[in-house]
Amino acid sequence: MRRFEHGGNIYEHPHCVDFSANLNPLGMPDVARGVLRQSVDAFANYPDPSCRDLVSSICTFEGVLSAQVVPCAGASDAFARICQVLRPAKALVCAPGYSGYEQSLEQVGAQVAYHLLDECHGFAVGYDFAEAIDSSIDVVFLANPNNPTGLGVSRKVLLACLDAARAAHATVVLDECFIDLTLHQGSNDLLAIYPNLVIVKALTKTFALAGLRVGYALYGDVGLATRLCSAGQPWAVSVPAQLAGVACLSERGYLADSRSYIACEREVLAQALEAAGMVVVPGVANYLLFKAPRNLCDAFLEHGILVRSCDNYVGLDKCWHRIAVRTAEQNALFIQALKEVAS
Amino acid sequence: MRRFEHGGNIYEHPHCVDFSANLNPLGMPDVARGVLRQSVDAFANYPDPSCRDLVSSICTFEGVLSAQVVPCAGASDAFARICQVLRPAKALVCAPGYSGYEQSLEQVGAQVAYHLLDECHGFAVGYDFAEAIDSSIDVVFLANPNNPTGLGVSRKVLLACLDAARAAHATVVLDECFIDLTLHQGSNDLLAIYPNLVIVKALTKTFALAGLRVGYALYGDVGLATRLCSAGQPWAVSVPAQLAGVACLSERGYLADSRSYIACEREVLAQALEAAGMVVVPGVANYLLFKAPRNLCDAFLEHGILVRSCDNYVGLDKCWHRIAVRTAEQNALFIQALKEVAS
Repeated sequence: MRRFEHGGNIYEHPHCVDFSANLNPLGMPDVARGVLRQSVDAFANYPDPSCRDLVSSICTFEGVLSAQVVPCAGASDAFARICQVLRPAKALVCAPGYSGYEQSLEQVGAQVAYHLLDECHGFAVGYDFAEAIDSSIDVVFLANPNNPTGLGVSRKVLLACLDAARAAHATVVLDECFIDLTLHQGSNDLLAIYPNLVIVKALTKTFALAGLRVGYALYGDVGLATRLCSAGQPWAVSVPAQLAGVACLSERGYLADSRSYIACEREVLAQALEAAGMVVVPGVANYLLFKAPRNLCDAFLEHGILVRSCDNYVGLDKCWHRIAVRTAEQNALFIQALKEVAS
Repeated sequence: MRRFEHGGNIYEHPHCVDFSANLNPLGMPDVARGVLRQSVDAFANYPDPSCRDLVSSICTFEGVLSAQVVPCAGASDAFARICQVLRPAKALVCAPGYSGYEQSLEQVGAQVAYHLLDECHGFAVGYDFAEAIDSSIDVVFLANPNNPTGLGVSRKVLLACLDAARAAHATVVLDECFIDLTLHQGSNDLLAIYPNLVIVKALTKTFALAGLRVGYALYGDVGLATRLCSAGQPWAVSVPAQLAGVACLSERGYLADSRSYIACEREVLAQALEAAGMVVVPGVANYLLFKAPRNLCDAFLEHGILVRSCDNYVGLDKCWHRIAVRTAEQNALFIQALKEVAS
């Protein structure tokens, strides 16, 4: 498996049910579909380079000031811009963790230090992560919840990291792309306290807009936000991405329904996995990490189910798999296949 | 006017007819509209990271090998990736020329050398440009036709540039974003001869897909193309961009009609501008550069017409304006306004 390969490649497996990409199982809200269908003529024009309407919607949704918001073409664009502006010599990341951080860091020649999350300690991010932030570190990437483990970072550990980073003059990039699909609170309130904090979020996952590439970064330091804006391309966020983003960000009820649905269905999947003898990490996100006696991806593929093999995550091997929480109907298909695959 | 500001900002002037962005005046082909309306459900999924169908369509359209193609989120993404991979210390650009090259070059800290195109010599790119490519130059940006002048680069001058760049171990980035809207041939045939040639094209202008961000780079050197692919973001080209690109690239008849239409309407506009006492550069593209006795942008705005002021182009001043060739009906509105504005 290629080092930076991700889940969600349904184009190589077009007839499968996709459990490899972590999108909201309820899909794109109807309001977004409607807006997109009605707005095709507007796709001909250049996007608003300032993303005025989208920024306004993000401010309302997140309770931040517009000067703190940098809209991006998905979280990947945010990570790339952060690395291009900060140009860190050395970065600290968790392993296992999302490989997109490393990809952006490598593009600017940064050295990547891995903090291994220990299976024996349940992959939790603990105080030892904060202790690893010494003066050699320029930027810290941390995900809440982490991907692929699905585990949240406790408030106390997060504060310890932010304090350690402040002492080390390092920036903390907190990836909260999945937080709005959990029952946990995000960390926006900390932006006012920590100018060295950047929070990255993506509508990609939250509202199943993965094909449109839309996300944003929120900054404690308004000066840094301005530099990040100009680091991007002139029209980074497309017209459909801006329109769908605005439409979705007012859908708070949809989001609340999604969270409940995911929490319930995640429990169904976790129980089935444990019943089948798998080691399941008790994640809080819209996906689950589990360990099997062997790699099961090909076996699942034979049942028309696409699972994310975790063998290209630093710190995991081919026995580890990640599955998204999908709809009840799709999850039932997975559980049926699981029984046959694991037997 | 801000240094890197472009035309096409209809969001600040929503009730104007936009002559400031250089899009195909016939608009997006109907086949693309249809595909986009029918495909909204597919926008929820991650895009194909390899852009398989789009690359295949580009190969057929351009007559190149798939290994030579790097699909991008518009030409801006191509320029940014080229600069990130080549990391030039010094670049040569024409002035006046598209400011997006400088923006990408500045992001990687490159020094920019301007080759001034002389108004007395009609802004033509001549052999002196090729002579300016010395061993201190790492990358050359050249546009055919140039923007904002609309003038093509002669084959002989282009070959002289490529030879000089080869001797200097420099890469030539040839921006042919507007070539398919002219009656002139592109330079694809030179890719097989010059491994130091990269041609950048955008469907943005050609098929009026500016809101979707889709373009591509074609490489003489397949090894460089591979590096450029991995320099981008994992899902740089969105689902609607890929779908619309595929739909448009088979519309050769539409493109031929567009070319004839533009050539005819450009002549109408050029004659009207000259009759109104303007100095008109005899461009071959879907836009025209002209010089007025004073800046006319505000006066045109009062008539509901958005014109591109050229005062932020190096080598031009506020007396220079660029207008797109629009539909016959819109061009008549411009000409009517011109009579009042210029009187």
